Amino acid sequence: MKIYTEVIELATARKREFLNITLRAKAALEKSGIQEGILVVTSMHVNAAVFVNDEESGLIEDISKWAEQVAPHREDYAHAGRFESNAAAHLQSILLNHQAIVGCAHGKLDLGPWQQVFFAELDGPRPRRIQVKILGE
Amino acid sequence: MKIYTEVIELATARKREFLNITLRAKAALEKSGIQEGILVVTSMHVNAAVFVNDEESGLIEDISKWAEQVAPHREDYAHAGRFESNAAAHLQSILLNHQAIVGCAHGKLDLGPWQQVFFAELDGPRPRRIQVKILGE
Amino acid sequence: MKIYTEVIELATARKREFLNITLRAKAALEKSGIQEGILVVTSMHVNAAVFVNDEESGLIEDISKWAEQVAPHREDYAHAGRFESNAAAHLQSILLNHQAIVGCAHGKLDLGPWQQVFFAELDGPRPRRIQVKILGE
Repeated sequence: MKIYTEVIELATARKREFLNITLRAKAALEKSGIQEGILVVTSMHVNAAVFVNDEESGLIEDISKWAEQVAPHREDYAHAGRFESNAAAHLQSILLNHQAIVGCAHGKLDLGPWQQVFFAELDGPRPRRIQVKILGE
Repeated sequence: MKIYTEVIELATARKREFLNITLRAKAALEKSGIQEGILVVTSMHVNAAVFVNDEESGLIEDISKWAEQVAPHREDYAHAGRFESNAAAHLQSILLNHQAIVGCAHGKLDLGPWQQVFFAELDGPRPRRIQVKILGE
Repeated sequence: MKIYTEVIELATARKREFLNITLRAKAALEKSGIQEGILVVTSMHVNAAVFVNDEESGLIEDISKWAEQVAPHREDYAHAGRFESNAAAHLQSILLNHQAIVGCAHGKLDLGPWQQVFFAELDGPRPRRIQVKILGE
């Protein structure tokens, strides 16, 4: 069994930003030399997300707006008074999830034809870390 | 370490459909010969979901309605204008999640007494693929 | 490859309760002797959740309220009439997710500086079981 861990470091530029990190995950897989197994892609943050969906700019806009509708920025969160008022970013991180698993076979990612891996900055701009942990052979 | 991958192929018959795929996952586990480990059950689609909950027809109806309330079909999504108007199905896929992990021990699924694995068709009818990847020994 | 499974058993005391189980996961990892790999932390229940976020009492209150707003207790669920009326707890379990993966390296949990693992009782008080399955070396 081989285990390979890589941390993708990036700096987001805006308050909200959705980045397709599929090629970064693919690069980690190639570097690992692992052919068969799984990649666990995890945001190391409580106010950001990792999820799998479709790369289409209109849809990404819809996902961002929808997250904001379901868990809106408001002034009356309990978390807001004591620290910075980013409770909505935490809730959206839970809504979108902070991690995804991608299988791999023959050294390639097992993604469906429309599936891409995204990192969602929900409370930027900030330096961010995304862990890619690969288990397999 | 053994790694086994199976793709469950099925054709849904309706626009929305919730299918209990626990027996399909169990069959994959038996075929794999793996006794101890994990199964990663993943929808290969961006407009369908895989989740774990209870098999009770009233509840399944509630889950379907709730997903539609939280991420309703609407005409004003940015995704709608350019391609087919299935943005709500994408959002519901994110809400319900597109994958679940089930442990296994002694060749049996580690599910709680009420836990079952479901595939949710959110934008059918279509041919669908669900990957079951099993890692273990 | 080593595989270690531990079931955390606990009894919740209230209808809703959010418990930080990070130290329990850490204890399981230490007991396993596994240095490198992943922990899959899973609620064995369909009306409870496991998620990763920040330990701050105001935020935990916000998460609990938000889950109740997005999937409120109501009288008109289809699930309510036939069994106990806990459909909202099921929906909130799906919203918050019932499992999380935590990587480990050098025998320590790979958590970001603010990340903690929580068990959410959504329909208590009850005896509860949380499975920690660790794969690695």
